[in-house]
Amino acid sequence: MKKVEIALLGLGNVGKGVWNILKENKDEIRKRSGYDIEIAKILVRDKNKNRGIEIPEELITTDYNEIINDESIKIVVEVMGGIDPARDYILQAMNNKKHVVTANKMLLATYGDELGEAADNKGVMLYYEASVAGGIPIIQTINESLTANKIEQVYGILNGTTNYILSNMDNVGMDFSDALKEAQEKGYAEADPTSDIESFDAAYKLAIIASLAFGTKVKIDDVYREGITKITATDIKYAKEFGYVIKLLGIVKEIEGKLELRVHPTFVSRKHPLANVNDAFNAIFIKGNAVGELMLYGRGAGELPTGSAVVADIISIVRKGTDIEDYTTVKNNLWHKEIKSFDEVECKYYLRILVKDKPGVLGEITTALGRHDVSLRSVIQRGEEAEDVKLILITHKTREENIQSALKEINQLETVSSVENLIRIENL
Amino acid sequence: MKKVEIALLGLGNVGKGVWNILKENKDEIRKRSGYDIEIAKILVRDKNKNRGIEIPEELITTDYNEIINDESIKIVVEVMGGIDPARDYILQAMNNKKHVVTANKMLLATYGDELGEAADNKGVMLYYEASVAGGIPIIQTINESLTANKIEQVYGILNGTTNYILSNMDNVGMDFSDALKEAQEKGYAEADPTSDIESFDAAYKLAIIASLAFGTKVKIDDVYREGITKITATDIKYAKEFGYVIKLLGIVKEIEGKLELRVHPTFVSRKHPLANVNDAFNAIFIKGNAVGELMLYGRGAGELPTGSAVVADIISIVRKGTDIEDYTTVKNNLWHKEIKSFDEVECKYYLRILVKDKPGVLGEITTALGRHDVSLRSVIQRGEEAEDVKLILITHKTREENIQSALKEINQLETVSSVENLIRIENL
Repeated sequence: MKKVEIALLGLGNVGKGVWNILKENKDEIRKRSGYDIEIAKILVRDKNKNRGIEIPEELITTDYNEIINDESIKIVVEVMGGIDPARDYILQAMNNKKHVVTANKMLLATYGDELGEAADNKGVMLYYEASVAGGIPIIQTINESLTANKIEQVYGILNGTTNYILSNMDNVGMDFSDALKEAQEKGYAEADPTSDIESFDAAYKLAIIASLAFGTKVKIDDVYREGITKITATDIKYAKEFGYVIKLLGIVKEIEGKLELRVHPTFVSRKHPLANVNDAFNAIFIKGNAVGELMLYGRGAGELPTGSAVVADIISIVRKGTDIEDYTTVKNNLWHKEIKSFDEVECKYYLRILVKDKPGVLGEITTALGRHDVSLRSVIQRGEEAEDVKLILITHKTREENIQSALKEINQLETVSSVENLIRIENL
Repeated sequence: MKKVEIALLGLGNVGKGVWNILKENKDEIRKRSGYDIEIAKILVRDKNKNRGIEIPEELITTDYNEIINDESIKIVVEVMGGIDPARDYILQAMNNKKHVVTANKMLLATYGDELGEAADNKGVMLYYEASVAGGIPIIQTINESLTANKIEQVYGILNGTTNYILSNMDNVGMDFSDALKEAQEKGYAEADPTSDIESFDAAYKLAIIASLAFGTKVKIDDVYREGITKITATDIKYAKEFGYVIKLLGIVKEIEGKLELRVHPTFVSRKHPLANVNDAFNAIFIKGNAVGELMLYGRGAGELPTGSAVVADIISIVRKGTDIEDYTTVKNNLWHKEIKSFDEVECKYYLRILVKDKPGVLGEITTALGRHDVSLRSVIQRGEEAEDVKLILITHKTREENIQSALKEINQLETVSSVENLIRIENL
């Protein structure tokens, strides 16, 4: 059997997943790739850390030169995460004619273009299926299976932690802080959950998907981002009452040549396939002008699902031949597409407003909305014991800047205690 | 711009879809493939048929020699369907060093192995994404994205017509014959619906999926097949009562090295993602030992979705280079796997039995079941006006041969009018 040697950079969860899959599924991989794929070196920061996995000592190194200068190593697999030194390591690997597989969403969302160009200049392959949605083959699907389409819209549940939290809130009626605590206890959320609950993680993934799906450069700063921390049990309850479920969606649409990019909690009809994506699962829903509606669903994280995507990338490279002299990566700067300012985005809105229990309140609010061209589809006001009363409004479609300026005005009304929440509604 | 010439065999729905996509999405396809893809010839049976599509007359031919002997044609796209003459045409094309894209499930399920070998012998590429589940990239996913996995189980809603009928029955409480009639009126079912409602169509697709997912030869005769014609509104009602929905599933599992292959109506938990696949949509749910659970959902038929898969295959070939001298197709005979006899398959069962309203009936039936090692999980018997009474039973897991021999015995009991239906239950 022919042999290909590879190196791992990093031995965290994903690195361990890759190691275990290459061992456990050796026979499958051998038959499908035609090669024995051997990990020849693993770069770590601390040689003596106990990782609960048995790996021959001579494979482990703290010196990247041992990898970069080893000509028998054909593929470098970066699973360390973060920008530095991952970016530099990858560029060095390409300089030395090594192909690269990476699972690094932050790096790709920030420097994806630079890495793609470097790969092309050096004629090496750059694969990164694992950077978005773990085991779900979304990159491959966009790059290979949807090439005959104008992709029009992509909606993704791209973060398992927040989907776990929101599913729990929806099922059990929990409040956000309790749901977060439970997710942390069960290991679904980190001790510092910021990257997940403030939607940084989902925004990185959306930027990568959008670049590929629309063949254009999307930077992480192009993505409007909002977290899930303001969602309450009350919002979930009203969403249900109106036939919706609240999901954290990454959304990209092309409308008249402009891209609209945003990650925020979203009302989704309970009848839509995305509404039934529960727990820590991820899903990506795509509309293309030929394929119609397509959804991919699966595990967006975890040692083995993410490892599955990394090893598939390694096998793709091995199958194409690691010795090809000038390989060209799939381009994501085929078109220049303008990014729409968030003010111009059009949505329907759910509003939860705390008002004083006085006559004429609703009238004042609808008048203020009307002044900014915002009209209402539904209103719920229920008398309660408290002095303040909850007013739940669902608007018709309007522009973001209209709703925001209307809300500024409403916030200043004497009869309004506060605008408690605004959640966007998508009719997928 | 470089140019690749291709030929279409057939100009039915899929052929028209391919024509329209190549025209409508010319710019996308050009940028993504690096080529202008031009249809140089179209083979039809009847030149004068009005197809409601404007195509230059000189492209249309009834003589295959015009295609086979034209060296500038690099790819033959077979979208005519059926075994003869499609099989012969494809072999001839390969003989003349032309790459082949086909959407022909019947041909692949029957002669897939022969075609794969011929492609390898001639060093040409054979692509067939469109043969299974229309626009859903299931072939690509198995062949490229799940290569690091031992695939353990695949469950597919592979036929849009039957899913439309069953969804309608579930939503509206319609009976089968009414739902079929409506599907015919709306164009979802053919005038002769046999291939769909007797599950031939789904069985072909399952054979193709199973061959690739398990790297072995699966023939259409290896697949146990049962249609949906016996499902009644009553079955649907009781399925609901037990928390299930009835779906026509194609199922393949590897258990202790043996493959189990079957297409039949199946009770699926209403909480499972497959339960929410409605209308004419298709979906494939896969369990792999690394990726975990993965589902692909989309349009399984139609001019444009199927055309989307065909054109993606054409682009894949163009990208790899039509002039490569010895291309190797993905093999599906890597392993030899035994096919399990259907008698050995283990399931839970839903039984609907019509019994006489007499004392001791239930006892006689449970005794008969017990003699064949079949035990019960749930029983519903409701007094009704009629002389005969419906008895609904749900069994624990048992072997197919046990339930069948028990039912033979039960059918002969004097107190039993008839065993009206048996539906298998899968706990996905």
